[in-house]
Amino acid sequence: MKKGIAHTTEEAIQPVATEAYLPGLSVDNVIFGFHADQLKVLLLECRNRKDWMLPGGYIRKDESVDDAAKRVLQDRSGLKNVYLQQFSVFGETRRTKESVMRSAMKSLDITFKDGDWFNQRYVTIGYYALVEFEKVKPTPDTFSVSCAWFDLNALPTMIFDHKEIVEQALVALRQHLHYKPIGYSLLPSTFTMKSLQAIYETILQRKLDRSNFNRKMLSLGILEKKEKLFTGAAHKAPYQYSFNKKEYFRLLKEGFGMPF
Amino acid sequence: MKKGIAHTTEEAIQPVATEAYLPGLSVDNVIFGFHADQLKVLLLECRNRKDWMLPGGYIRKDESVDDAAKRVLQDRSGLKNVYLQQFSVFGETRRTKESVMRSAMKSLDITFKDGDWFNQRYVTIGYYALVEFEKVKPTPDTFSVSCAWFDLNALPTMIFDHKEIVEQALVALRQHLHYKPIGYSLLPSTFTMKSLQAIYETILQRKLDRSNFNRKMLSLGILEKKEKLFTGAAHKAPYQYSFNKKEYFRLLKEGFGMPF
Repeated sequence: MKKGIAHTTEEAIQPVATEAYLPGLSVDNVIFGFHADQLKVLLLECRNRKDWMLPGGYIRKDESVDDAAKRVLQDRSGLKNVYLQQFSVFGETRRTKESVMRSAMKSLDITFKDGDWFNQRYVTIGYYALVEFEKVKPTPDTFSVSCAWFDLNALPTMIFDHKEIVEQALVALRQHLHYKPIGYSLLPSTFTMKSLQAIYETILQRKLDRSNFNRKMLSLGILEKKEKLFTGAAHKAPYQYSFNKKEYFRLLKEGFGMPF
Repeated sequence: MKKGIAHTTEEAIQPVATEAYLPGLSVDNVIFGFHADQLKVLLLECRNRKDWMLPGGYIRKDESVDDAAKRVLQDRSGLKNVYLQQFSVFGETRRTKESVMRSAMKSLDITFKDGDWFNQRYVTIGYYALVEFEKVKPTPDTFSVSCAWFDLNALPTMIFDHKEIVEQALVALRQHLHYKPIGYSLLPSTFTMKSLQAIYETILQRKLDRSNFNRKMLSLGILEKKEKLFTGAAHKAPYQYSFNKKEYFRLLKEGFGMPF
């Protein structure tokens, strides 16, 4: 059995055959979390290198592309059943580089041969995930030495086209805001309107008018206002909201009404 | 040199090496045209079979995924520089079937071996194209005997998951209507509001209110009303419109304003 790409799950950390994977294809996940009124993205620090990469992986011959993305997400974050959306394919001829692959795989039990597919250009399928920051257990994989959150406006140097993949994930999110609600998987069960607005502002990369945002958001019928608890300073505390799950998921599925 | 997949351009109809292509990956184009107030889709009739398929192809090792989709579109329609949008990846484990591949390739100069990638599951990347119906020259490829337009509500039996790919292309178009204009590449240079409304109605799969549609569409600022030519019956003829190309492409790039 030729040794090659390693499984990234803890129970199977030893290298397995590259033949177990679809050649020339990978998934990369842009995992967004929301913390301290900022959208953050989860990245891996490459082994033997100074740069960072997206959590990604190859696709087993016996699994679907979507299932590969779910597996990567679970292995790197510890989370299952999270909002995960395929958004674009990255397939330029020069997107991956042999020198990067060689250094990233150095010290792993992999023998490089000319013509190995993982040593040539491969195509990657981009997904974005929206996760609750506090619930994530960042976990490096075989090719990385650490796993950490970064602010979207302070990304480190990244390999290949991974920074472009993050940017395109944001573009996709921005487009999806036109017809889908967002926030459920990013926020705790109760939250302030200010937090929800901060998510929109990060994705749209501009400030929004507070009262206009409140009015539009409430008109969607997906928010429930919580009773204020009486405390001495209660009149200063902002209202807490939660999502009406039924309405939220109905809109997520059916989309907002068209203007026509 | 192992013989295998054939080029589909006329100048290179003879089989070429399967090694020239990325293994396990293809593109499939859902080509939409608008004719007689209906959206139609361009399909190929499989050689040696009773069913139909989307115009598709494999990706050369020296070309990007997007360029492969453009090549397929040009080879099947004769059109260049057409609106072409990647919309989803189809990667289920059982999506392609060996028996279908074998019959489709029968009578071509291809030797099947166990383990050939084109004989196993491969992943396809879906694109949709919006083309001007009258300008298309439907052209079959090596694997097909004819190329023809079908009404979206009267699709023939199709191989693999190709019918689902058409349906998902429509879902994607429907979502894109929320933030992008449509029609420029589907309509001739002048057209009636009724034709434009018919495109929206086909995509949304419901009837729209005429005066509401007119008002919303004119408010986008992308339409120019043409002067009516004076003829005896001119007062009965509907107004003709054309797109303001500059505004149309600005909106296509920047998207409609968010409601927030």
